[in-house]
Amino acid sequence: MEITETELVEALRRVLSGGGPGVRLGPGDDAALVEPGRHLGVLTVDMLVENVDFRRPGTSPRDLGYKAITVSVSDVAAMGGSPRFALVALGIPPNMDASWVVELAAGMREAADEYALSVVGGDLSRSTEAIVSVTLTGEVPETGAVPRSGARAGDRIVVTGSFGAAAGALKLERAPASSVAGVVGTPWARDLSVSLQRPVARVGEGRTLARAGATAMIDVSDGLALDLARVCRASGVAGAVVLGHVPVSPALRQLERVMPISPVQLALEGGEDFELLATLPPAAAKEAAAELQERYGTPLTDIGEIREGSGLVTIRADGSERPLEPRGWDHLAGR
Amino acid sequence: MEITETELVEALRRVLSGGGPGVRLGPGDDAALVEPGRHLGVLTVDMLVENVDFRRPGTSPRDLGYKAITVSVSDVAAMGGSPRFALVALGIPPNMDASWVVELAAGMREAADEYALSVVGGDLSRSTEAIVSVTLTGEVPETGAVPRSGARAGDRIVVTGSFGAAAGALKLERAPASSVAGVVGTPWARDLSVSLQRPVARVGEGRTLARAGATAMIDVSDGLALDLARVCRASGVAGAVVLGHVPVSPALRQLERVMPISPVQLALEGGEDFELLATLPPAAAKEAAAELQERYGTPLTDIGEIREGSGLVTIRADGSERPLEPRGWDHLAGR
Repeated sequence: MEITETELVEALRRVLSGGGPGVRLGPGDDAALVEPGRHLGVLTVDMLVENVDFRRPGTSPRDLGYKAITVSVSDVAAMGGSPRFALVALGIPPNMDASWVVELAAGMREAADEYALSVVGGDLSRSTEAIVSVTLTGEVPETGAVPRSGARAGDRIVVTGSFGAAAGALKLERAPASSVAGVVGTPWARDLSVSLQRPVARVGEGRTLARAGATAMIDVSDGLALDLARVCRASGVAGAVVLGHVPVSPALRQLERVMPISPVQLALEGGEDFELLATLPPAAAKEAAAELQERYGTPLTDIGEIREGSGLVTIRADGSERPLEPRGWDHLAGR
Repeated sequence: MEITETELVEALRRVLSGGGPGVRLGPGDDAALVEPGRHLGVLTVDMLVENVDFRRPGTSPRDLGYKAITVSVSDVAAMGGSPRFALVALGIPPNMDASWVVELAAGMREAADEYALSVVGGDLSRSTEAIVSVTLTGEVPETGAVPRSGARAGDRIVVTGSFGAAAGALKLERAPASSVAGVVGTPWARDLSVSLQRPVARVGEGRTLARAGATAMIDVSDGLALDLARVCRASGVAGAVVLGHVPVSPALRQLERVMPISPVQLALEGGEDFELLATLPPAAAKEAAAELQERYGTPLTDIGEIREGSGLVTIRADGSERPLEPRGWDHLAGR
């Protein structure tokens, strides 16, 4: 790369650093300084690796930057919290254009503005593949923090939005061009693509679910079945999902016409949806659904119930139950 | 690697997670929860990449883990702060033994215990080379935070400890075995090696220098000349270093007998010393030196003065001055 670290750091600083509320000292020193929070601190880190989490050809660096921030915001949202400050560590291959890095930073800035957080620092290193690691700090009121471990038998299982679109977009991207001729550019194909490239973190929804009395919450990053299994294991309970109630992305019904996919399977096992899954007592679940619809226009769907025991089952239309394997994304093994 | 993400995460959690003061919820959820700090927050991230910052053959993963935490602690120390919580993101190559990762975590735990901080979360991903990224949060009293930018003409330039040992250790490691026969295992060679593998973060010293009235401070990670140049540029001042006053690691005098090196050059341009460089008014510098010696047994050496203008010079024994190039470690270009 024909740019020195100093030049690149200064280019990045122009894109990323806008000061912002609570920032006393932004990037450029040994560390950033920020005002203390009034609530509990929320801390999370996510690392995206080229050829594992994204491919450079075909990925807009701006979208990637946007998504790298958003997936961490989603983790904070899943605790019932609000994001505040981000730190960004980048590994940069020798052959990379500086413009790629600056575009990446521009996408991060877009997401930072969207979620009202400030990027206050970072680190750069050389690496073989591109690495994008985002640490996010946030805040959550003492009484409003929702871990994975509080689900209780009798709680309803609810989810925001719909599932499977990001996994559908990946299927479409990887399909031979001849098999999906005429599909790219259709509104539903664009919907799929946007779901993958510009996911939405449900921050307000997370706070609302926390206030409504959510007993457990998780953001569905690795697949609905896998992430529900994590909640059940952490809580020491079992989960039963009504298969027909799982909200499937409408665009998957279109995709099903041109590719051999199962929309319900993608919804259950596909990752990267970044919707919230929460458990609440039945009355609270109903109230939360009404409030989410009214405040954010976000549907909240009741997909099943928490039971005593362990493991997951699906409930079929005829009332029969079958085990649900917690398949999803293993970050070390791949799919 | 013959281990799933879940198994590895659980192995790591056993090594890393000891709860600790202020930790409400440690690793294993979407995010960690920590008690709010009473002072300003300090935030920093550092990424170590295999074959850039370390080589796997010849590096003990335990030392690497210890160092990965320590270099971030050093950044917090350079603000005058104290570390509190760490997040660790790891990129793991497919061929890596799980034991390597567990040893890495054990080294992190050692450093976390040493510096009284808690590792509260992390992320794992596959990658081509090993990646170790550490985010550290800390705290600093409102009046005690020392950025790089406050140096003023007339201030003295002071440094803790001595310089060049880590760079000397690298020289020794990379020398042909025949040229350094009989050296490995000598006490001074071990001293060099320990400096590189187990650096010390000057946390108490940083707090003391801040209280003593340091106007600027930096930890010398990339080289004394380069890091002093950063302080001077950020502060809009010039620096003059008395060449004969730069504290050179005693072991370099031994190394000089067996290899063609310049101890003073290694001290000025070698990185990874993690000593603190601060600027203070003359009287404060003297008091700070006495206090550091008394409290920590750490020498504080006056190596020159801050002047009006820009750039760096060295002052020779005969009083003549020459420009000092701010050479050091460029993380993208290498050396």
